[in-house]
Amino acid sequence: MNLVLLEPADFTDQDHVRIADRRCRHILEVHRCSPGDELRVGLVNGRIGTARIVTIGAAALTMEVSLFQEPPEPMPATIILALPRPKVMRRILFGLAVLGVKNIVLVNAARVEKSYWQTPFLQEESVRRQLLLGLEQAGDTVVPRVLFKPLFRPFVEDELPLLCGHSLGLVAHPAAPEPCPRGVRGPVTLAVGPEGGFVPFEIEALRASGLKPVSIGRRILNTEVAIPALLATIF
Amino acid sequence: MNLVLLEPADFTDQDHVRIADRRCRHILEVHRCSPGDELRVGLVNGRIGTARIVTIGAAALTMEVSLFQEPPEPMPATIILALPRPKVMRRILFGLAVLGVKNIVLVNAARVEKSYWQTPFLQEESVRRQLLLGLEQAGDTVVPRVLFKPLFRPFVEDELPLLCGHSLGLVAHPAAPEPCPRGVRGPVTLAVGPEGGFVPFEIEALRASGLKPVSIGRRILNTEVAIPALLATIF
Repeated sequence: MNLVLLEPADFTDQDHVRIADRRCRHILEVHRCSPGDELRVGLVNGRIGTARIVTIGAAALTMEVSLFQEPPEPMPATIILALPRPKVMRRILFGLAVLGVKNIVLVNAARVEKSYWQTPFLQEESVRRQLLLGLEQAGDTVVPRVLFKPLFRPFVEDELPLLCGHSLGLVAHPAAPEPCPRGVRGPVTLAVGPEGGFVPFEIEALRASGLKPVSIGRRILNTEVAIPALLATIF
Repeated sequence: MNLVLLEPADFTDQDHVRIADRRCRHILEVHRCSPGDELRVGLVNGRIGTARIVTIGAAALTMEVSLFQEPPEPMPATIILALPRPKVMRRILFGLAVLGVKNIVLVNAARVEKSYWQTPFLQEESVRRQLLLGLEQAGDTVVPRVLFKPLFRPFVEDELPLLCGHSLGLVAHPAAPEPCPRGVRGPVTLAVGPEGGFVPFEIEALRASGLKPVSIGRRILNTEVAIPALLATIF
């Protein structure tokens, strides 16, 4: 936790907060803070600053907060991701938040097992928790938006062209002859397939909606590794 | 499993193998192969090719193998990594193998908990297993070398200058003013710190041994995300 995220409800007045949940335990048990210690904090979807611990109680602490800095610039990418296995889903959401991606679309694909759509990890609370943990790791405050699109075709054919807009559209495809572009300055819409990749029909549908298949090399990367590697290549 | 890794001991003659372990189960249960089906295979530390399934028994299968292609080029990077938490250790080794890193040094650091050195995941069998799984994901055959250096100072002061040699030496350090170089053509030695980062003494020792502190942005990335992002930035 490189930054403690504060919610508006934590504020007891304009510049004081009281917290009593996992954040309090983390501050006391991992950071081993005492009254007077300063921590890096940020307001969810707001500014970043510091907080000085005023009191430590049995299961709660109060801090005096000063917010004076804007959060880091967002990564100008919309990620369209075939719904991952539940086991890796949480780590991928965490990683996307760490990287500063603010627009995430989780979409169905032929090689996504139907059961993945039933996992409790897709519940709003669970998704938000992973995103907040990622922001706390990165030192960011702006919560990514996550959309769920359980129907591939209507999403890709009807919505994607609008969503993609004037951004550079790319779909990661290890078999593509064209290499992934580097040093892109503007916004990017990037689709990443499931384990086993998008099937040919899906690649064609994505291409028809404005996403060019590109490759970052001969190796087939797993999604968790592919996302940071693709984004670092592109920007 | 985008490639089935074969060991020399699997060969019953020059171009036939018999396998009866997790690979056999994976081929039957996940890929749902039948006799006659072709799979992508590779010989550990050797060439890549195809195998045709000849017979399927109760818990074993035989294949006719043809190896005709060199494995992908290795990534010309030596990674010096502060020993990660056991929980993430396996995923990081898997990820390094996926990315094509062939030289890995796991080193102690002030913010590495002593207990991490006691984990069973550091046993040779466990390390090798993660590396092979990573190679099977990537479609590679060349097993990375992993060294363990439980003493930071003698390693960094005495061994690192030799190990670094004429490569470009870098240490990932979010506080560094200098950005990480891009489009590097030659070999790189890259150090990545523990959660919480290297302490100032460690950064100075790494710098004195030829590693320049560089940053890939204001966000503090977790190790799993940082490694692919750094390598994709550098190469």
